[in-house]
Amino acid sequence: MTERQARGRSSAAPDPRAERRSIAVDDLATLARGCAVMGAGGGGDPQVGVLMAREALQQHGPVSLVGFDDLPADGLVMPCGLVGAPTIAIEKLQNGGEGARLVAETETLTGRPVVAIMPFEIGGSNGLIPLNWAARLGLPYVDADGMGRAFPTMPQMTMNLAGVPSSPCVMTDERLNTLVIRTGGVEWTERLLRTSTAAFGGAAVAALYLMDVATARRATVPGSVSRALGLGAALARNGDDPIDTVVDELDAVELIRGKIIDVDRETSGGFVRGSAIVEDARGEGRLLRLEIQNENLAALEDGEVRACVPDVITVLDARTGEAIVTERLRYGQRVGVIAYPGPAVWRTPEGLAVAGPGAFGLRFPYTPIAGAVRAC
Amino acid sequence: MTERQARGRSSAAPDPRAERRSIAVDDLATLARGCAVMGAGGGGDPQVGVLMAREALQQHGPVSLVGFDDLPADGLVMPCGLVGAPTIAIEKLQNGGEGARLVAETETLTGRPVVAIMPFEIGGSNGLIPLNWAARLGLPYVDADGMGRAFPTMPQMTMNLAGVPSSPCVMTDERLNTLVIRTGGVEWTERLLRTSTAAFGGAAVAALYLMDVATARRATVPGSVSRALGLGAALARNGDDPIDTVVDELDAVELIRGKIIDVDRETSGGFVRGSAIVEDARGEGRLLRLEIQNENLAALEDGEVRACVPDVITVLDARTGEAIVTERLRYGQRVGVIAYPGPAVWRTPEGLAVAGPGAFGLRFPYTPIAGAVRAC
Repeated sequence: MTERQARGRSSAAPDPRAERRSIAVDDLATLARGCAVMGAGGGGDPQVGVLMAREALQQHGPVSLVGFDDLPADGLVMPCGLVGAPTIAIEKLQNGGEGARLVAETETLTGRPVVAIMPFEIGGSNGLIPLNWAARLGLPYVDADGMGRAFPTMPQMTMNLAGVPSSPCVMTDERLNTLVIRTGGVEWTERLLRTSTAAFGGAAVAALYLMDVATARRATVPGSVSRALGLGAALARNGDDPIDTVVDELDAVELIRGKIIDVDRETSGGFVRGSAIVEDARGEGRLLRLEIQNENLAALEDGEVRACVPDVITVLDARTGEAIVTERLRYGQRVGVIAYPGPAVWRTPEGLAVAGPGAFGLRFPYTPIAGAVRAC
Repeated sequence: MTERQARGRSSAAPDPRAERRSIAVDDLATLARGCAVMGAGGGGDPQVGVLMAREALQQHGPVSLVGFDDLPADGLVMPCGLVGAPTIAIEKLQNGGEGARLVAETETLTGRPVVAIMPFEIGGSNGLIPLNWAARLGLPYVDADGMGRAFPTMPQMTMNLAGVPSSPCVMTDERLNTLVIRTGGVEWTERLLRTSTAAFGGAAVAALYLMDVATARRATVPGSVSRALGLGAALARNGDDPIDTVVDELDAVELIRGKIIDVDRETSGGFVRGSAIVEDARGEGRLLRLEIQNENLAALEDGEVRACVPDVITVLDARTGEAIVTERLRYGQRVGVIAYPGPAVWRTPEGLAVAGPGAFGLRFPYTPIAGAVRAC
């Protein structure tokens, strides 16, 4: 067992992070750092989420972070977040009332009060945006999410795998326009939601997969918010080598460290698609190619898959250890590329069917992280 | 006063059509003929509406045709119809349950029962499609509509002019997908509804401008269904010259009679746009140019506007008197082009702002029908 593994396994022991019972203004930067790494290059710039949450937390005080044990089993959980292009969301600012409208519409539709707000996606800005709403509404924030990372589409949520209906889905934006979408399946929810997001101007917020606490317990990735906070805190401690710090904290594999020598990227079909190539800094002539659709989907070396979805591949700034989202990759950046296993639910046959390489049009089967296998 | 005018004015006297209290299977062809003429070339092929209504009327019997006096003043009226491309609706067949879902969702949203169904547009297929739903649900059909003709967009309804909110708007289709749209204004309702219609596959059905009977009395064009039935019946009587028959019945002006010698038409932005040129059959060398966006928007001769929106311009088959919708115009057709004044509400400054030439990008002011002016 390597030292890294020993440290990684120690996190199975009682964790001081579990004691955290609220999120305050001072925690936002920490949470943002963690969400950025868990976003696999996608999920949007967490700084947008920080900006939205800061004022709300300053005004309304800390938000309670709760587990499912803290909530009534029949209480209604509202998974929610931003949909659309994060690049647009930066300029298409929310007016603060979006969460209240999502909750009000959800309560009207179901006839039940919402007992807690949950981010449907922990990665990127979406780990933080619903926190803003929880603060304004005085609702607790559930320490869980529907991805355990970031993915680009609505079927790619654990609630879908667990058979929770995606509809009714509520959408709104800063203009007060509101949509309720009822469909027979999540593919139609995705289609109508994506089209409407474009009509809204490219970004909107949504709540879907409404469910009770007992269902959420089996249908979500638990502990996501704590994990992001712990990861962000580790990154803030920032030892001699920030990438090593992240690798240790996540029990991840460093796929390469070097310089970005090529970025081929285009925005098409509402997604950022393309590839980036990282050249090894140690002069060994190694090249790692990243395939991108919003998130980093796969890392290939000499035609071999070193890591791929649903595992998490994140590009880190070599100097700071901060995650670099795919839309900000550029020639010359000094980076480390890390990978760590995605939540186990995504590595089941059902999970791979909606979030494995084939779901993104990649023509190879799911391949566990090469380095991780060898390290066992 | 011409003989035609005398006949036209006589229709102000008590009208035997007012005695009609129901619509049966045998009335469908008559209603379709009238709706086609009132569609100004748009509103879709009424035969689609006939097909949809026939089975429902055969199975459930005639539908009561009611005026506002027949309904409780505080009862809820549901204006509804097809949205999207009629050419798609021909192949994307409804499953029959659409109207029931529109009514159920409307009743849930408002907490009130729907007392009657009203076509939001009398022109084209939309004068018939809601009749199908009324038959299936055992609801009466209101003898009124929201246009008095056909127009391509949702702001172009008299309920908008009367200040009735367009939302909540309910949309659904044969796949059972359902949307509820809440907006701050009809422009957003139009935008979200149009985009969602595309996502639904190009055609859907919708209910909007929900209102009580007292409001509908001042916010709609009354008598539209009776008018279409009367017009269809006149056309069926078909004297020596079917175009003269329509002209007499509507107190319309015949702008030209001749042959279509040019059609320039393209589908763009979800609309049929283009122009058609009719050459005078009497050898006088006259040419009439029709400007088209779904409906016939304007008729020009020697650069002068002879008729334009919101007045109704319809192309009739010279042999049968049947209206020819804009997507079916083609070279060589022998036609008569008629025009008659649109409902008075559209000729007010407020009406012209949303349905006059400028609302369609035409760079001339509203010009009353030339022949009609001369005939006075």
